[in-house]
Amino acid sequence: KMLRTVLCTVLFLGALPALAEVSQGHVSVVLLGATGDLAKKYLWQGLFQLYLDHVSSGHSFTFHGAALTALEPGQRLMFDVLKKLSCPQDEPPDRCAVLKDQFLKLSQYHQLKTAENYTALNREIEMLLRQEGLKEAGRIFYFSVPAFAYTDIARHINSSCRPAAGAWLRVALEKPFGHDLESARQLAAELSGFFREEEMYRVDHYLGKQAVAHILPFRDQNRQFLDPIWNRHHVERVEIVLKETVDAKGRTSFYEQYGVIRDVLQNHLTEALVFLTMELPSNLSSAGEVLQRKLQAFQSLRGLEKSSAVVGQYEAYGSHVREELQQDQDYVSTTPTFAGVLVHSDSLRWEGVPFLLASGKALDERVGYVRVLFKNRAYCPQSGTLRDAGSSQCKAKQIVFHIGHGALNTPAVLVSRNLFKPIMPESSWKEAAVQPEPHVFGQPLSDYYVYNPVKERDAYSVLISSIYHGRKDFFITTENLLASWEFWTPLLDSISDQPPRLYPGGVENQHLLDFEMVGGDLAFALAEPLELLHPEGPTPSDYKAIQAKYRQSPLVSAWPEELVSQLASDMERAASSAVARAGRFHLALSGGSSPVVLFQRLARHHYAFPWRYTHVWLVDERCVPLTDPESNFFSLHNHLLQSVRVPYFNVHPMPVHLNQRLCVEEDRGAELYAQEITALVANASFDLVLLGMGTDGHTASLFPHSENGLEGAQTVVLTESPVKPHQRMSLSLPLINRARKVFVLVLGKGKHNITSLMSRVGHEPRKWPISGVSPSSGRLVWYVDYEALLG
Amino acid sequence: KMLRTVLCTVLFLGALPALAEVSQGHVSVVLLGATGDLAKKYLWQGLFQLYLDHVSSGHSFTFHGAALTALEPGQRLMFDVLKKLSCPQDEPPDRCAVLKDQFLKLSQYHQLKTAENYTALNREIEMLLRQEGLKEAGRIFYFSVPAFAYTDIARHINSSCRPAAGAWLRVALEKPFGHDLESARQLAAELSGFFREEEMYRVDHYLGKQAVAHILPFRDQNRQFLDPIWNRHHVERVEIVLKETVDAKGRTSFYEQYGVIRDVLQNHLTEALVFLTMELPSNLSSAGEVLQRKLQAFQSLRGLEKSSAVVGQYEAYGSHVREELQQDQDYVSTTPTFAGVLVHSDSLRWEGVPFLLASGKALDERVGYVRVLFKNRAYCPQSGTLRDAGSSQCKAKQIVFHIGHGALNTPAVLVSRNLFKPIMPESSWKEAAVQPEPHVFGQPLSDYYVYNPVKERDAYSVLISSIYHGRKDFFITTENLLASWEFWTPLLDSISDQPPRLYPGGVENQHLLDFEMVGGDLAFALAEPLELLHPEGPTPSDYKAIQAKYRQSPLVSAWPEELVSQLASDMERAASSAVARAGRFHLALSGGSSPVVLFQRLARHHYAFPWRYTHVWLVDERCVPLTDPESNFFSLHNHLLQSVRVPYFNVHPMPVHLNQRLCVEEDRGAELYAQEITALVANASFDLVLLGMGTDGHTASLFPHSENGLEGAQTVVLTESPVKPHQRMSLSLPLINRARKVFVLVLGKGKHNITSLMSRVGHEPRKWPISGVSPSSGRLVWYVDYEALLG
Repeated sequence: KMLRTVLCTVLFLGALPALAEVSQGHVSVVLLGATGDLAKKYLWQGLFQLYLDHVSSGHSFTFHGAALTALEPGQRLMFDVLKKLSCPQDEPPDRCAVLKDQFLKLSQYHQLKTAENYTALNREIEMLLRQEGLKEAGRIFYFSVPAFAYTDIARHINSSCRPAAGAWLRVALEKPFGHDLESARQLAAELSGFFREEEMYRVDHYLGKQAVAHILPFRDQNRQFLDPIWNRHHVERVEIVLKETVDAKGRTSFYEQYGVIRDVLQNHLTEALVFLTMELPSNLSSAGEVLQRKLQAFQSLRGLEKSSAVVGQYEAYGSHVREELQQDQDYVSTTPTFAGVLVHSDSLRWEGVPFLLASGKALDERVGYVRVLFKNRAYCPQSGTLRDAGSSQCKAKQIVFHIGHGALNTPAVLVSRNLFKPIMPESSWKEAAVQPEPHVFGQPLSDYYVYNPVKERDAYSVLISSIYHGRKDFFITTENLLASWEFWTPLLDSISDQPPRLYPGGVENQHLLDFEMVGGDLAFALAEPLELLHPEGPTPSDYKAIQAKYRQSPLVSAWPEELVSQLASDMERAASSAVARAGRFHLALSGGSSPVVLFQRLARHHYAFPWRYTHVWLVDERCVPLTDPESNFFSLHNHLLQSVRVPYFNVHPMPVHLNQRLCVEEDRGAELYAQEITALVANASFDLVLLGMGTDGHTASLFPHSENGLEGAQTVVLTESPVKPHQRMSLSLPLINRARKVFVLVLGKGKHNITSLMSRVGHEPRKWPISGVSPSSGRLVWYVDYEALLG
Repeated sequence: KMLRTVLCTVLFLGALPALAEVSQGHVSVVLLGATGDLAKKYLWQGLFQLYLDHVSSGHSFTFHGAALTALEPGQRLMFDVLKKLSCPQDEPPDRCAVLKDQFLKLSQYHQLKTAENYTALNREIEMLLRQEGLKEAGRIFYFSVPAFAYTDIARHINSSCRPAAGAWLRVALEKPFGHDLESARQLAAELSGFFREEEMYRVDHYLGKQAVAHILPFRDQNRQFLDPIWNRHHVERVEIVLKETVDAKGRTSFYEQYGVIRDVLQNHLTEALVFLTMELPSNLSSAGEVLQRKLQAFQSLRGLEKSSAVVGQYEAYGSHVREELQQDQDYVSTTPTFAGVLVHSDSLRWEGVPFLLASGKALDERVGYVRVLFKNRAYCPQSGTLRDAGSSQCKAKQIVFHIGHGALNTPAVLVSRNLFKPIMPESSWKEAAVQPEPHVFGQPLSDYYVYNPVKERDAYSVLISSIYHGRKDFFITTENLLASWEFWTPLLDSISDQPPRLYPGGVENQHLLDFEMVGGDLAFALAEPLELLHPEGPTPSDYKAIQAKYRQSPLVSAWPEELVSQLASDMERAASSAVARAGRFHLALSGGSSPVVLFQRLARHHYAFPWRYTHVWLVDERCVPLTDPESNFFSLHNHLLQSVRVPYFNVHPMPVHLNQRLCVEEDRGAELYAQEITALVANASFDLVLLGMGTDGHTASLFPHSENGLEGAQTVVLTESPVKPHQRMSLSLPLINRARKVFVLVLGKGKHNITSLMSRVGHEPRKWPISGVSPSSGRLVWYVDYEALLG
């Protein structure tokens, strides 16, 4: 009855021509969670805007609010919200008042709780359509409900509320879309049982922010300027930032489960990141092409590690949680309310460019932006003070997508004047007047071309309009969602029990949250203001490397980092003196995991190492192709060789792979390697051999009771390992013992038992090959960390 | 007579204890060119300072001014200068007045023109020593004369003026030390006929500037802070700059021959460069060790090309030259009075860091500095306006050695407060008071720790004192000098007829001299305001590479430099599209001399080349070990592979050296290579094969009438060359013709005949193997330079 009245009113309104001729059909919009916070704040307003914009489009509309609340109180609550809807500034007040009145009449509340409720809703819609002789165009269901309710609602809609054949169904879903990869997959699988992919519109409201939505069009329309510079050769760094002043008070039941990375970085900031890094499709209006490029961009992201992030928590968060979740006083939350994350893309375009993502609550200001800072490649002989400012090439060059708030307090696109004057669509972006104030991103505003939206639009209005138009590129597809979770989940797992740095909140934070890139890692710039005592005694840096004897040979011991740094320095010294003496340095390196940190140390800190005169040999190798990740050489290449300049001729991988097969006796690989050594290494005496020690007392690939390599004339041997891959090639003990220097590196608690044992036994190479290491005229030094030594 | 009086006075002065007991001996200082500009302005003052500092050292002194002028007028001129000597501020006026009086009495003028004059001088010195019973400590001869006079004077000194046995001879030489590598070598050879290396003190007065002289000690004393950051991972760029406001007026007879690069960059700025880039010796006080490290630093500098520099000339320079050198009105000088040069070091420490050297006359201000700018690796969540400035990690980080003048108007060492508080020797450097003004290098002075010399000393005083103390590390050794000329001469040759950009001079220059790094090159940031027509018709760059047909295939032709640059770009494009398509790029490269320039171009200008995904194969190889300079692979490695990052696994040298022998049929090297190709290259179809063309029509190592490789199923073959080394390995024609792209590069007049011939003949591979190149489904492109094409 009511619906009928409503619809008659619409037709009566006369905004539409005669229905029978031109109607595009009827659209029913159902807002689930119609009386919730999001609905109150944004969604009803967005629906009203949709109505204002499209009342004359040929479609007719009805709006159905729904919730669990019973009809009477629900109706009251919902209409309280609707009455407060505001008219947009650019709307003539008269028209708006009339249309608001109509909007209220077209809107109706439903209790949706049981299966019957859904059937009833469907019946009502069908009845209306029949009674009014309307063709159905489609139905929109907007889920503004907690995620745990999704599956049930989806089941009901699928079974009872699908529109008539030929009309579309669109369901809009609000995050969270899962908690990690696994739960996201599960939710996606459940939903896919009820809806087809093209029916689902997963909302990330950042995609409705005008500045974010313009990133791709901007890149597309300014290809001529960006093509030469949108790459690692020109971009210095990128910052993607959302700062909030509010804290999580009142929302901790949600927040404590999610934290800032799931709440902001995994979705909003990641979408902006992907818009920046993805290759542009040739046709930007093809949602399919855009999606493909986005997925490729995800594939190029380098995996995150614990050290890729810094996390913080505002000091009052703990008490907010304890109050709201009724936890007792010793409950400690490790949920981060602030995070900075360093992201790298390994694409050719972006390799090496740092993308810094940061977000937090209780910070000093509210602002969101995406900032692309270009390298300064100019030198200006005129001194700064005498220089005509203009568009000097020596000023910073940047492009900023200013999402909102902050000093500008409006969405904006900023391009440094010394870069280029961008092409902007005049219908949607207008150039702002030149102003010397405020300073933004280190420069006066007058240093930029500044563009603001012709008409500022709320993100939800944009998104609701996009759903209505079926524009899927403003939404997150299942593949996109899972790619993002796949990227973030390892980091989330690795930091789940890491205590965040506490910060006071607001302006008081000062430098406490400043962070820095160190190597490929991220770290807070200032040391923790309060030094925590090491719970188990003195900290590593309290010790200097100790010098002593182990198995009658010199022993260097320290905490691992210092030990490795000492070993690397000793190796450089050995190398320099060999090169000074003989013009060459023959270095034989072991595989395994311990040397990896050593290799990295050598690559990153020893610039004076005479690599050009160094020959690199392998102590042992697994019988796998050299390009296999299991290969010792592959690891050596990855962590060391690709970062230094050893001439190609001086690199000597073991020939485990000959005639398309691995370590076959008849291919005589061991013999070949032995010949190569004889040909190049004087006396077959390496300048330095680096060894490790296994928990079973093996060294190189010489295992206890090995038939080969422990004695005899053979210098390179094939051996069998008790663990996979079983087949190995190894230098023999007699060859190792000809070296001028042998360094043995032993790291970690796991080696404590064997370290203790070896300190007591004599020369028993058949039982423990390591005990046979005893250079005949060279020098043996043990590098054993405290954990291996002391347990 | 006079000398005797003088000396008695000194002894009488009583500053010394009884002579017989403690005298360290007598030092005679001879200043040649005693009445010239440099002597007037700096040298006499420096000698007076020496006397003031060392009158009580135990040595006695006499000072001999010498010139070509006859005795009487020379004496007058010289004593006019001496009378004007000023007393240093920190010297008690009484003492100084007395000592100045003594200094005048110890000084004497000599005409030194003929051999007899030199003999006479020597006789006088000897007589004095004998009469006063003085032991001779040594003699200093300071050459402040034009370079052309060096050899004659040196000859006279060597033959007539050497001190007594046991005493030292030190000759100080002023630049210019040659005009290029050749002339510098010649001058050095001549001088070495008269003086031993340790007797020569080549002055670069920049080494006497306190801020420059402190670079090495600073690096040494602050190792703990600099070790982790003094490298390519942390340094963004380095600027080494000497700006002058004066022009060359009055000095054009010198300047027109030299120009700013020889006058300032080759010596002063290069020395600073080397102090920054060299590895620190373990013992800084060992001049020998320092020299070794300096020479190594020179070895690491990447060769300069025409495109490494921008040059300018102030507008009035031409008329200054025409007036002073009496040239007629159409005389055009191309001597640069301004230059900016981009220098790279290929050492592991500095690879990729731009070192910008700039100097010029008639600029807006006088200032000299060395500025090391570090990368900004921090992100500060606190907004700039709300941030406590302090030592924020987000401010610029720099270390500046401020040589003099400019806003500071004093030598200074500046270190950003967010870097570290440096260790400075208190005896020579003092911390300056914190001042917010002036702004230097983009920051208020209060952002830095600022140190000034405790006592400001003129460079010449420092250097004269160093000569007296025999400290050779403040001077330029012959090896050092020649290394510098070796570095600079190719650039000087390549730009000798390049018209410099004209600039008005002073503040008017504005942005006209701003320059930018573009790829590995340097270019003015603004386009030439006035296009000059080339006097002799169109220059090479007026042509675009022409596109036409040759042997029915596309032909690209141009002058060699352009042609190679076009080819390199086409190769990069091919590589990128192959990687985009297949994830891999299989590139087969030829040996020979033509590709060397191409390899260098690829190494230095194509940073976006996807080397990481490229497999490098050889088209042909000579049967010599890979480390033989004749080896194609060796040349490829030298000119390309060692500069780029191709993974070890992707490099495929031909196996010409197996079982310690070369290209023996039974070792089946060709077969092995064919197998490797089959295993890795889909369809055995290379993405790109680069060929050359021999004057006999050979290509790859396929020679006319070859028995192998012109047809048949074999893909890799052993062949015979008519020239040594005769034995070769080569891809076969059928394999080459399977490629997706084949580029043939032909350069030089020597190839004109065969180029003409091949344009007329058809498919006759047995006569001319190159005529058999005809990809079955791929694309063939000829890159032939104008000389090869047109003769």
